Order: sequence, then structure tokens, then C-alpha cells
Amino acid sequence: MKLNIGVIKGDGIGPEIVSEAMKVLDRIGEVFGHECCYTQLLMGGASIDVNGVPLTDETIGLARASDAVLMGSIGGDAGTSPWYQLEPSKRPEAGLLKIRKELNLFANLRPAVLYDELKDACPLKEEIIKDGFDMMIMRELTGGLYFGERKTVDIDGVRTAYDELTYNEKEIRRIARRGFEIAAKRRKKVTSVDKANVLDSSRLWRNVVEETAKDYPDVALEHMLVDNCAMQLVKAPGQFDVILTENMFGDILSDEASMVAGSIGMLPSASLNETKFGLYEPSGGSAPDIVGKGIANPIAATLSAAMMLRFSFDLDMEANTVENAVSQVLREGYRTADIMAAGKIQIGTREMGEKICSYI
Amino acid sequence: MKLNIGVIKGDGIGPEIVSEAMKVLDRIGEVFGHECCYTQLLMGGASIDVNGVPLTDETIGLARASDAVLMGSIGGDAGTSPWYQLEPSKRPEAGLLKIRKELNLFANLRPAVLYDELKDACPLKEEIIKDGFDMMIMRELTGGLYFGERKTVDIDGVRTAYDELTYNEKEIRRIARRGFEIAAKRRKKVTSVDKANVLDSSRLWRNVVEETAKDYPDVALEHMLVDNCAMQLVKAPGQFDVILTENMFGDILSDEASMVAGSIGMLPSASLNETKFGLYEPSGGSAPDIVGKGIANPIAATLSAAMMLRFSFDLDMEANTVENAVSQVLREGYRTADIMAAGKIQIGTREMGEKICSYI
Ligand SMILES: CC(C)[C@H](C(=O)O)[C@@H](O)C(=O)O
Ligand SMILES: CC(C)[C@H](C(=O)O)[C@@H](O)C(=O)O
Repeated sequence: MKLNIGVIKGDGIGPEIVSEAMKVLDRIGEVFGHECCYTQLLMGGASIDVNGVPLTDETIGLARASDAVLMGSIGGDAGTSPWYQLEPSKRPEAGLLKIRKELNLFANLRPAVLYDELKDACPLKEEIIKDGFDMMIMRELTGGLYFGERKTVDIDGVRTAYDELTYNEKEIRRIARRGFEIAAKRRKKVTSVDKANVLDSSRLWRNVVEETAKDYPDVALEHMLVDNCAMQLVKAPGQFDVILTENMFGDILSDEASMVAGSIGMLPSASLNETKFGLYEPSGGSAPDIVGKGIANPIAATLSAAMMLRFSFDLDMEANTVENAVSQVLREGYRTADIMAAGKIQIGTREMGEKICSYI
Repeated sequence: MKLNIGVIKGDGIGPEIVSEAMKVLDRIGEVFGHECCYTQLLMGGASIDVNGVPLTDETIGLARASDAVLMGSIGGDAGTSPWYQLEPSKRPEAGLLKIRKELNLFANLRPAVLYDELKDACPLKEEIIKDGFDMMIMRELTGGLYFGERKTVDIDGVRTAYDELTYNEKEIRRIARRGFEIAAKRRKKVTSVDKANVLDSSRLWRNVVEETAKDYPDVALEHMLVDNCAMQLVKAPGQFDVILTENMFGDILSDEASMVAGSIGMLPSASLNETKFGLYEPSGGSAPDIVGKGIANPIAATLSAAMMLRFSFDLDMEANTVENAVSQVLREGYRTADIMAAGKIQIGTREMGEKICSYI
């Protein structure tokens, strides 16, 4: 099979970790007889440096023409990088928001998994995590506060800012469907998170999620308020299978969950639209502080590539092979600096990529 | 001094825990020569049962006429309580939102403290909490998504919901001032939390907070994105002194922080306006599952009463006396069920109230 993959290496550690993920993809190609064709695309800070804007129409067009896009991380140090002298709509992150909207990537999947081998790195006490956890956060990615109208106006000399949170039932239904479909293949439980005691959009959310649930009688549905969910993630993360939520709540909760898992350098993500197309990227950031040191953890990018094989190419066996290789490397005791623990063997970004390849 | 205190016992465990807090206030009155005069007010479910609505104008008037209001908790089990058959604007929580707005209680203070004696109950690993933590969350309480316009309309047969997030610079400045004032009396650090990479309201927030900071040169200011803050609370809670944030972010982060502290039954809160008036209530909920069992923890309500003494009556010594009595009880090994640990002495709600009084 020929895999047409757009590659946005991105900023900070992005290029370092994406290079390793590409090696892993190439190794998969070799073993399973696929051909990976890469098209390099510019986005974020790297695009600002070259084109003056974080995302060009050319990049959008090339991304659209690919089967899937693998991405590093976007952005730099907001305190020191000249990119942050620009107005918000011209900064690196604006490119990310724009590509999500342009390509209609409404379904953002963010797993938060406690790796048995990495329990040391989890900030929670042993008694809370003894049974482990493995949740999938399904975040709506093209609606809500992120894409509503906004403005800042002067009312009688008083600056006043407005941001609109809006959802319609179609937007809610399509993400809810995805949530139930994913849950049906997992432990068959959806926790829909909202703030229905305050927001109209949350009441509509709850309503439409309940309607959608009728089509998935095997999947259990529960509703949880967002403030409670922020507590439960710390108190008893094992209770969750699929968390289904809107854009801003998903932003906050998925970051909290990935920290609870203790290994943000391990966690991939996928952003999907109605077709097989997807944008795959690590959950973590561009980590400007460790750029060029060769110590960044390439596992999140590698597992993002695995999600790509599964969701965009239906290559489940290949995806499993990558995931198993990662587990194998961890079991053998190899660690990058961010997940290092006593008695383990510390290796760099490139060695980690090679080790993973060696188990494929 | 005569203390005119409105008392909203509230729903669930509310009446049980408020009764103990009142005993503690009476004991303080005895020792320090104050007279506590209580006016019982109805709000939430208890008001629905009697008046058909969660908050009457009469209650608002009586609250206004008090120097301060001590409150239990509002609401019941959303799954089983008949209150939740009502439309949202008639449910118990609507009373809470309305009284906040009517009395202009824009400054919500929620401490999240790790008690040395309760480190066992903290869900975080020892290495993360070894130096303890003591943060004050200052949440804006009368603006943002909670009080913007909202509507649900039918657009060509598609239900669409809107909630508006709005802040003007006056609203931001007054809460920012409070945040800096509190920080000036603590460890002199404000972490202002927003989502300035997406929201106009957050950009205005950041701007006005920076302007306000100029009047407090001794207080250090840092900005943090809300998703990052949700991570940092789990990763390194000791870094925070005062967290200053808008209404919805404050709702989510303060609940997360109180769970991180491991003792939601311990944590008080204060909601203040521009005068000395305040509404004081436990951070936790009405815990319908343990109503009437005599096991609810009255410490959060008691510490709320201490905040009242400090903020509404300027009775710092009396407030400290209550807080010290609580610490003393914990040091002696007395615990309610929610904070019970091996080797400690379990006591009920009433005994806990009496124990606290006995140290005053
Ligand atoms: C960079 C930022 C705009 C983005 C978001 O808020 O969606 C990021 O936090 C993420 O979660 O992918
Ligand atoms: C009951 C609810 C409306 C309320 C809020 O969201 O403010 C509660 O969660 C709180 O934090 O006091």
C-alpha cells in the first residue's frame, strides 16, 4: 500500500521527534510491504520564519492532498520567542487552529494511559492507580468558544470583550457518534462532560448525547459536570473509559489527564474529520528548553504514527506492531530522560527511535 | 460586638454541618465577648420545598440586612431528587447563582491547603507534596459564561445554543485588585490564569491584570494558560500562592485543587462584594449519600465561619483561634470518616464540633 503522508515537523523538539516516528513508519513499510511517501509541509513558527504567516493556503492544499498528516509540535517560548511579538492571529498556534477548522478536524482523540512500566512517573499514589487506567478523551475540536464570534469594544470608555460559545445539534451529534463508536470497541462506557447546570450549550449537548445514545444500546452513558470531572480524574481515574466533551473543557481535562498519567511525552493524539483523513500529533508541547539536546522523548510522535496507521489507513496489525514495540522497549528498561527512573537505562531521542525499530 | 449573621442551612448535609459551625461561633462569642444573632434563611432545595422557588426576594432582603451569611450546601442528587425535574432556572443551584449576582459577590476565595496532619488523604505522591502547599484561588464569580446572554434557537430545523462569555475591564480590575491585595499579605505571588491564545476576554483579562500589577510592585505576577494550570496543579501544586482567574476556569480549577489537597470536607470558601459583606460556605457539596448519618465533616463549615470572622468582622484573632482549634483537633488524632486514617480516632459530626469548641 502507498501511504501519502504530509509531515509538519513543527517547532522546538518537533523535528527531532518526528524524524524518529518517520524511521518507525519506514521500518513498518519495509516489514509489511508499504511505501511511505512524505511531503514536508510548513506550519507554525517554522512557517512564520519562512512565509511570515503560520499557515499558508499552499500548506492547506498539500495537507488536503495527503492521506494523513503527521505533525511535531507547534510554538515556542512565549516569553522569549519573537513569534509572540505578533498579534494573536499571526502566532504559531493560530496555524493549528486554522488547519483544524479548514480540514474540518472535529474529532480529537487523546488517550491517557497509565503504562504499567511507568507507574513510577505517575504523580498519584499507588493505592489510587493500583488497577491502572486507560481512558480515551474525545474532544470536539472545531466548535465552541474556540470558533465563535469574538470582539473587544469600547463601551463608554470601558473596554469590553466578548467570546461566543455556540454548538448546534449536528456538531454535537457527529462527535457523540464518534464517541459511542470508539466506546463500543473498548470498555463500552461513555462519560459525557458538560456544565448543564449553567450553560445552554451544555443542556443541548446533554440532550443530543442522550438521543445519540439510543443508537448504541450496548454502551453505558453517564453525565458528569466538568468541575466534578476535574476532581474525579485525580481521585479515581480508573472509572473512565471514553470521556466525551466539548472543545474548551476537552482542552483542560485532556491536559490534566495526561499529567495524571505521568508521561506526557508518551501520549499521542489524532484529529479526524468525516473521511479517513487525520492529523496526528503528540499531546505534549514543543519543549523549547530541551531543543537540540537529543533527549526529547519520541514515543508520543511514534504512537501518533501508530494512530495514523489505524485510523487513516486501517492498518490495525501495523499499528499494533508499533505499539507492542514501544511496550517492549519500556519493558527492557530503556527510558528517555523525562521518564527515567532508578535502575533503568537512559537513552537519547535517536537511540529510542532505533530501539523501537529493532523490535519491529 | 454584635454579629448579625444570616444562616442558610441548605440541603443534604448542610444543616448538620452548619449547626456545628454555629456552636463554634457561639463558643467564640462566649470567650471573646461577642453576641451572635442568627437569622435563618431559606435557599436552594429547602426553599423550593417551602416556596416553590430556590430563592425568594424575602431571602435576598434578609441576607442584605445581615452583616454576613453562613451557608451549608445547596442541591441534592440530580438523579433521584424531584428538584431536578424542574427546568434549570428553578433548580436549587439557580438560587446560588442568583444570590451571587444580586449581592454582587464577585470575589470568590477558595483556599486549597495541604494539612500536614492529613497528608495521608492527599492523592499525590509524597515526593510531590513533601514541602506541602497552601494556595488561595481567587475566582471571579459574577461574570463570564455564567452571566452572559444565552439562548437556544431553531435555525432551519437545527437546534443551536449560544452562551456568551463577556468581561469588561472594570470587572477584571476589581477582582485583580483583590487578588493582589490578598497576595500582598501572603507569599506575594499571583498566577493569573486565562486562555489568552484563544479568547478575546482572556486577552483583555491579561492586559488589565498587567495594568493592575503596576500598583503592587512587591507582588510577582505570572500568566499561565488554563490547560497548563490544570496540569501544574497535579505536577507541582507547591508553586502556587494566589491563583487569579475568571468564573468558569475558577470553577474547574478550584475543584481540581481541592481534590489535590485530598480533603474537600476541610475546605471553606468566601464570596465577597465591595463592602464587608460576604457569603461563606464549604467548598464541598451537599453529599446526599451520607445525610442523617451523623458522619459529615463539619470542618469546612467551621473554617468558613472563621473566614467570616476575618473578612466580614475584621476579627482576626477570633478567626485564628478557630483555625488553631481545628489544627489542634487534627493533631490530637480526631477524624471524621472522610479523612480517617490508620491509627486515628474516628468521631462523628457532632463530636467533631464539640472537640473544636473544647479547644477554644
Ligand atoms: C495551542 C492551543 C491553541 C491548543 C488548544 O487550546 O487547542 C492546545 O492547547 C491543544 O490542546 O492542542
Ligand atoms: C452549583 C454550581 C452552579 C456552582 C458553580 O458552578 O459555580 C458550584 O459548582 C460552585 O462551584 O459553587
